[in-house]
Amino acid sequence: MAITVGELAERLGLEYRGDPGTAVDHAASLVDADPGSLTFLANPRYRQHLAATRAGLVVLDERYAAECPTNALLSPTPHLSFARALEMVMPRHRPDDGVHGTAVVEEGVRIGSRVHVGPHCHIAAGCVLEDDVEIGPGCVLMSGAVIRQRARLVARVTIGHRTEIGEDSLIQPGAVVGAEGFGFAHHEGQWIKVPQVGRVVVGARVEIGANTTIDCGAIGDTVIADGVKIDNLVQIGHNCHVGENTIIIACSGVAGSTEIGRHCAIGGMTGVAGHIRISDGVQVTGMTQLTKNLTEPGVYSSGTGVEPNRRWRRNAARFHQLDEMAKRLRALEVRLAELKGPDDSGD
Amino acid sequence: MAITVGELAERLGLEYRGDPGTAVDHAASLVDADPGSLTFLANPRYRQHLAATRAGLVVLDERYAAECPTNALLSPTPHLSFARALEMVMPRHRPDDGVHGTAVVEEGVRIGSRVHVGPHCHIAAGCVLEDDVEIGPGCVLMSGAVIRQRARLVARVTIGHRTEIGEDSLIQPGAVVGAEGFGFAHHEGQWIKVPQVGRVVVGARVEIGANTTIDCGAIGDTVIADGVKIDNLVQIGHNCHVGENTIIIACSGVAGSTEIGRHCAIGGMTGVAGHIRISDGVQVTGMTQLTKNLTEPGVYSSGTGVEPNRRWRRNAARFHQLDEMAKRLRALEVRLAELKGPDDSGD
Amino acid sequence: MAITVGELAERLGLEYRGDPGTAVDHAASLVDADPGSLTFLANPRYRQHLAATRAGLVVLDERYAAECPTNALLSPTPHLSFARALEMVMPRHRPDDGVHGTAVVEEGVRIGSRVHVGPHCHIAAGCVLEDDVEIGPGCVLMSGAVIRQRARLVARVTIGHRTEIGEDSLIQPGAVVGAEGFGFAHHEGQWIKVPQVGRVVVGARVEIGANTTIDCGAIGDTVIADGVKIDNLVQIGHNCHVGENTIIIACSGVAGSTEIGRHCAIGGMTGVAGHIRISDGVQVTGMTQLTKNLTEPGVYSSGTGVEPNRRWRRNAARFHQLDEMAKRLRALEVRLAELKGPDDSGD
Repeated sequence: MAITVGELAERLGLEYRGDPGTAVDHAASLVDADPGSLTFLANPRYRQHLAATRAGLVVLDERYAAECPTNALLSPTPHLSFARALEMVMPRHRPDDGVHGTAVVEEGVRIGSRVHVGPHCHIAAGCVLEDDVEIGPGCVLMSGAVIRQRARLVARVTIGHRTEIGEDSLIQPGAVVGAEGFGFAHHEGQWIKVPQVGRVVVGARVEIGANTTIDCGAIGDTVIADGVKIDNLVQIGHNCHVGENTIIIACSGVAGSTEIGRHCAIGGMTGVAGHIRISDGVQVTGMTQLTKNLTEPGVYSSGTGVEPNRRWRRNAARFHQLDEMAKRLRALEVRLAELKGPDDSGD
Repeated sequence: MAITVGELAERLGLEYRGDPGTAVDHAASLVDADPGSLTFLANPRYRQHLAATRAGLVVLDERYAAECPTNALLSPTPHLSFARALEMVMPRHRPDDGVHGTAVVEEGVRIGSRVHVGPHCHIAAGCVLEDDVEIGPGCVLMSGAVIRQRARLVARVTIGHRTEIGEDSLIQPGAVVGAEGFGFAHHEGQWIKVPQVGRVVVGARVEIGANTTIDCGAIGDTVIADGVKIDNLVQIGHNCHVGENTIIIACSGVAGSTEIGRHCAIGGMTGVAGHIRISDGVQVTGMTQLTKNLTEPGVYSSGTGVEPNRRWRRNAARFHQLDEMAKRLRALEVRLAELKGPDDSGD
Repeated sequence: MAITVGELAERLGLEYRGDPGTAVDHAASLVDADPGSLTFLANPRYRQHLAATRAGLVVLDERYAAECPTNALLSPTPHLSFARALEMVMPRHRPDDGVHGTAVVEEGVRIGSRVHVGPHCHIAAGCVLEDDVEIGPGCVLMSGAVIRQRARLVARVTIGHRTEIGEDSLIQPGAVVGAEGFGFAHHEGQWIKVPQVGRVVVGARVEIGANTTIDCGAIGDTVIADGVKIDNLVQIGHNCHVGENTIIIACSGVAGSTEIGRHCAIGGMTGVAGHIRISDGVQVTGMTQLTKNLTEPGVYSSGTGVEPNRRWRRNAARFHQLDEMAKRLRALEVRLAELKGPDDSGD
């Protein structure tokens, strides 16, 4: 939808430089932009591309305005303002209200106003779909699930029994929220299933990525607090609590009963052990082996980093001798101290 | 379903302490329990919460009975007895028998007694659904799949051609059992698909987690033995064999043609290389890089564990010098031995 | 479908040894083969099983022909020729042309010749299905998706808006190609969604594994080039480029805006950081922590490898002291050099 520079500036309450009548109708990067493109500059690393951009409009901080060869929208938070502008320029197509004829809705389901239920959905008994909810094609909602206002399930999402999805939350395709947790009693060499009777309670403004899985509580609930963003292919075990505005990057796994604080950032492919507590404000880099409580905010890491295989083979072999090496090092220090003698102590 | 202490004791063949007429109708943890709650004490770590519990009934070992402020069910295996009691108190709702009108069942499908096939399922030609099987909504069974007695596919499960699911097994939403394996012939820089014509054979009492994937054999079968429990988001490659009662925790991956023994426990996010053998009774902790045969039972691990990023950067850099450090350490030892001289050899 | 040795030889343009009239109708390994089996010998490791095989036909290199106790098909590329032969012996069943009655096809969808659309599919407005395309049961194609000639979506696949799947590509069950990328602007402690308006463009002859997820570009496209093979449960972030004929093994994750070159092989459960470049011809072993640009072809690795837990605990603890150990080692070297004195410098 073509919108002019002037209209975007007015609707976003921002100042502009240049021609208010120029219209943009799509988005592109600074480099790929053409005269109909909306773009932005947030990361200073891309500043080098500003002078040559052909964009119709660049959202940027005022301090870069002088370098901008085209129309500019001035914002102290250019990435955020770009997001807002883009929602106007390329608004999402909202599907029609109503329940598709191929969807199966069982008895006792409560459906609010302006709700969309797509083809081939199954909404089991006792579910609640509040106002403005969108359930895309192929979704399965088990009995008693509650989807709050404006929440959206994109497609092929599974929602477990009595699971609650908070308002304005967004669930990507293939996600399973409320699978039975992995709970067994070990008995005479066999694993006996323990019924998993808790729920998953997902807060407001949460995003859950494609093919991510979140298990219901064993007893009691698994809780994903307001504003949490979970990427694709993440596993959250039963009875975990993830705190407000925490972000978990793709391929990570959190074992059962762990509490992750607020405003944390968990890097991709991180493994978080069960029954531990991670303080508010913790950041971990990708592939961290997070096996113990972290009680202080800060940045944490693990792993060895990449190196050529030939060298790695030798170094990894030495890792297995590391404790022995440390003891030999200590022994050398002791022997050398003895050798130098007491009159050498000023060294 | 409210059940009294006395009835539970009788049906489970256990002794009780307290009032046989108290009824419980749901489950909760020791801390969250109210007078209608069934709960249990198995892990001694939670013993501290026993004295203050408000539960209607606690399943616990006889030795803790004296500390229990409410009704108690005495069991030498409290977690197991709790599981059994919970199945009575909160029995799972079994869907109605029959094939839903929106399901598509092709010709030549054999359907036993008391079988449920949910909405929007596709059961291809030649499938067999034995007695008491439940196929939840949105499942796809490719041609010739066999689902044995009482097995249950929760929802949106895909079962590959001729794949067999053993009796009493349980497949969670989104799992794909019997995808084509990842087999290619390398030819002039390109990867040429090799048809994957084997099956997956899943034994009895197996659980397969949400969005887990198990590939069919290239030629010959991938085998998941009786009693195996596989968590969410696990990958099992073609022609693997997983032995009886082994448990594999979430986000792990097993490359092709590997044999994992019986009674193993594979920690979360473990990577198991292809074409290796893991002995019976092996346990590996989370995020292990399992790259070689393990011929002895025992506990195995790898990884560096978490630490503050600033220190980690320095330590990981040193890892890349580890072989060189080991050689320098050895050189120091030799030089120091020389320095001390032959008459110092008694050191 | 039973085919004789002579016919296979003729159709593949290969020489044979033995009886041209022997027919094979299925495949098995050298060890498991019976007289109706087609099998092959490519990896010299399995040569030991050749003399005892009961197969009807073995595809192998001419140099092993003398050891073959049964009919042989001689090929300089036995794995490839086996693949070709197997396609003839066990041809895949192609479903009937046409759109299943339970599928929902919106307005303005262009459907070519000999296209199959299975039960319970949803094909949104503006999609294009070119000639000979197969869409298996339960697939969801969002608006404007383009599936090129002979591409096949096995079952329960989700294709995002305007995503393109190249000719002859194959998408396994549960894959999500074109989910919204994970893009947020951080503002006052909250993560604000940035609309993801790019596409995924998948080339020709690409395979995408079960439950794998590939995010659409934020602005601009995510590109999977011709001949790429991606295994199960892999995550590809927004705006990544994966080069021709690269192979990515299961459970790996590639963060956003990373470029992986051509003819790379990324081992299983590898984590690739965002915004980096991997040169053509790079191979990385399983579980590599790939955090930086790799500018040269070669084999790369990371991790510590597995060892008994008791020893690992000590070694991992020492890892956290590694930088300090390196400094102590250097100090010892300096002190020892001082001790030996300047006249010892020839050492």
